[in-house]
Amino acid sequence: MNTTQVKAFGTESAEADLKEVNINRREVLAKDIEIEILYCGVCHSDLHTARNDWGGTMYPAVPGHEIVGRISKIGSDVTKFKVGDLAGVGCLVDSCQTCDSCKNDLEQYCSNGWVGTYNGQDKHLGGHTFGGYSEKVVVDENFVLKVPTNLDLAAVAPLLCAGITTWSPLRHWKVGKGSKVAVVGLGGLGHMALKLANALGAEVTLFSRTPDKIQDAKDLGAHNVVISTDQDQMKAATGKFDLIIDTVPSIHDINPYINTLNYSGTLVLVGYLGPLDPFLNTVPMIMGRKSVAGSLIGGIAETQEMLDFCGEHNIVSEIEIIRMHNINESYERMLKSDVKYRFVIDMESLKS
Amino acid sequence: MNTTQVKAFGTESAEADLKEVNINRREVLAKDIEIEILYCGVCHSDLHTARNDWGGTMYPAVPGHEIVGRISKIGSDVTKFKVGDLAGVGCLVDSCQTCDSCKNDLEQYCSNGWVGTYNGQDKHLGGHTFGGYSEKVVVDENFVLKVPTNLDLAAVAPLLCAGITTWSPLRHWKVGKGSKVAVVGLGGLGHMALKLANALGAEVTLFSRTPDKIQDAKDLGAHNVVISTDQDQMKAATGKFDLIIDTVPSIHDINPYINTLNYSGTLVLVGYLGPLDPFLNTVPMIMGRKSVAGSLIGGIAETQEMLDFCGEHNIVSEIEIIRMHNINESYERMLKSDVKYRFVIDMESLKS
Ligand SMILES: [Zn+2]
Ligand SMILES: [Zn+2]
Ligand SMILES: [Zn+2]
Ligand SMILES: [Zn+2]
Repeated sequence: MNTTQVKAFGTESAEADLKEVNINRREVLAKDIEIEILYCGVCHSDLHTARNDWGGTMYPAVPGHEIVGRISKIGSDVTKFKVGDLAGVGCLVDSCQTCDSCKNDLEQYCSNGWVGTYNGQDKHLGGHTFGGYSEKVVVDENFVLKVPTNLDLAAVAPLLCAGITTWSPLRHWKVGKGSKVAVVGLGGLGHMALKLANALGAEVTLFSRTPDKIQDAKDLGAHNVVISTDQDQMKAATGKFDLIIDTVPSIHDINPYINTLNYSGTLVLVGYLGPLDPFLNTVPMIMGRKSVAGSLIGGIAETQEMLDFCGEHNIVSEIEIIRMHNINESYERMLKSDVKYRFVIDMESLKS
Repeated sequence: MNTTQVKAFGTESAEADLKEVNINRREVLAKDIEIEILYCGVCHSDLHTARNDWGGTMYPAVPGHEIVGRISKIGSDVTKFKVGDLAGVGCLVDSCQTCDSCKNDLEQYCSNGWVGTYNGQDKHLGGHTFGGYSEKVVVDENFVLKVPTNLDLAAVAPLLCAGITTWSPLRHWKVGKGSKVAVVGLGGLGHMALKLANALGAEVTLFSRTPDKIQDAKDLGAHNVVISTDQDQMKAATGKFDLIIDTVPSIHDINPYINTLNYSGTLVLVGYLGPLDPFLNTVPMIMGRKSVAGSLIGGIAETQEMLDFCGEHNIVSEIEIIRMHNINESYERMLKSDVKYRFVIDMESLKS
């Protein structure tokens, strides 16, 4: 298969910094789209994959799955896009397209395994996929999103992961006018959850450990802030919420939040992968038909729906633009939550 | 308030056997119904309350919340029943009737606290409520159920708790034709779950630790049995079920069952109150948008719906009839799971 070499930023091992590397992109096949990447958001998964925190990282690792850019080439059978269009790519670049999940537009739950934008199995070139920290990417048109033209393009990039990860549970659990939604954690995911839940018409609350986030939370769309370390405030919130979106990526006790769910309410985990320690207590769950659930990004159709919604409601992520060469220090700042609320790489900087 | 003394069976302390005691029932108020109790099912909650296993038992404790009988008296404003009708009473005899849950026919999640049929706060006489191990009970007509006349009355009694406890999650999670439902545990609750899920048109599987229950499970409505201690069988069941009803009352590992849920599937706990030990792993929940939920009995309207459904489909519980005076040895047999599948007390035996 014909390939083109492009510049990228990646790492050869869990311990090494990211640096400039060369990778190959396939020449466009009939259904393929080649995108010149303009901006790429920086997700926590990028950092965890680069450093092999979850195991299974294949090297060289080129992260990046919040990709926006301009279409530079299309295959002969592409129908949905043309050269020059803006386009986005999120966390998925392929799936089986035949299983029950795929047929129901839930490619992220493909029972035959979906292909991640990076660190996935590359079906075309062999080896593994490389993400958006690069000049170009080539993706099947079924996994390419249309990007609203009225939004700040750099600030659209994080919608492709942080946006859809919070949008999907809001939609699946039918949040709308009058819903009472709470968000745990105010980072890349949490700030999008506030914006999107607010725009869907919900009454939105942020749980925060400290009062210093109150003003920011309100600016982002929260109507209320509950200080989770204040027992009186937590008690006053008993039985209040229909849906809680828990974006915290590290181990934490969810039992206090369960008590703030209304009957039939659901707490959905989107950030934390691991054992629920301390033990989840079933008593309040049974006494109020409450659920604890997980949710993973979103399907392609749902991602397009979210982008269209953001276009209509003028919603983008809050970002800090960085140069590609500053990625390693940006990772360090992310680990200290020193970002409001998402780094986005200006890929022009990779050229210089 | 005028009262009548009636014979009952109860216990004065956690350590004492149950024996004959006298209790008072109020004279019927305008909306009240007095029922001559003919049969009362024996639920695990009866035993746990009698022995104060959960704390909070008020003595003397008179258990019993699977009550069927014949109406012997009605208040002046009763409209739904007449003297001589068959009637049933389940786990609830009152609730606030004004909260959001109550208005939505979910009295079991009443935010102001519902009144249990026993060990609840008696609003009329003060003190606590006494259950169905007695000659008569007086209950507000809004908490009295109509009993289908075509069914074996003794075998209807367990529907009032074991039946509705499994029916409610089957309905809430929309089980119908083609649904794939699994049941964990084959006791009073589990055997009803098999019958009801089958009658709703689901493909029904029992998880069993040993093969000796296969024939019984199939007779009760299971299409398949998966031996949960057989790793190959568990692996073959990966991703299969839309809903799992877990009726096991003691601590156990639910993680292996989560793996057998299809994407967007739910495991609902109806039997076990306490910490989920070992830790619940969020990874498969997030990777498949799976939920763990709890569910408690059911509302009054839903209980009536279940009884009507059972009348139409000729569904009753599998029972062993006992005399009131054998209740203590029956409790011992229940602790050894030595009952297929529910004891029901013939209340005639209390008179002799
Ligand atoms: Zn991401
Ligand atoms: Zn698939
Ligand atoms: Zn019961
Ligand atoms: Zn109520």
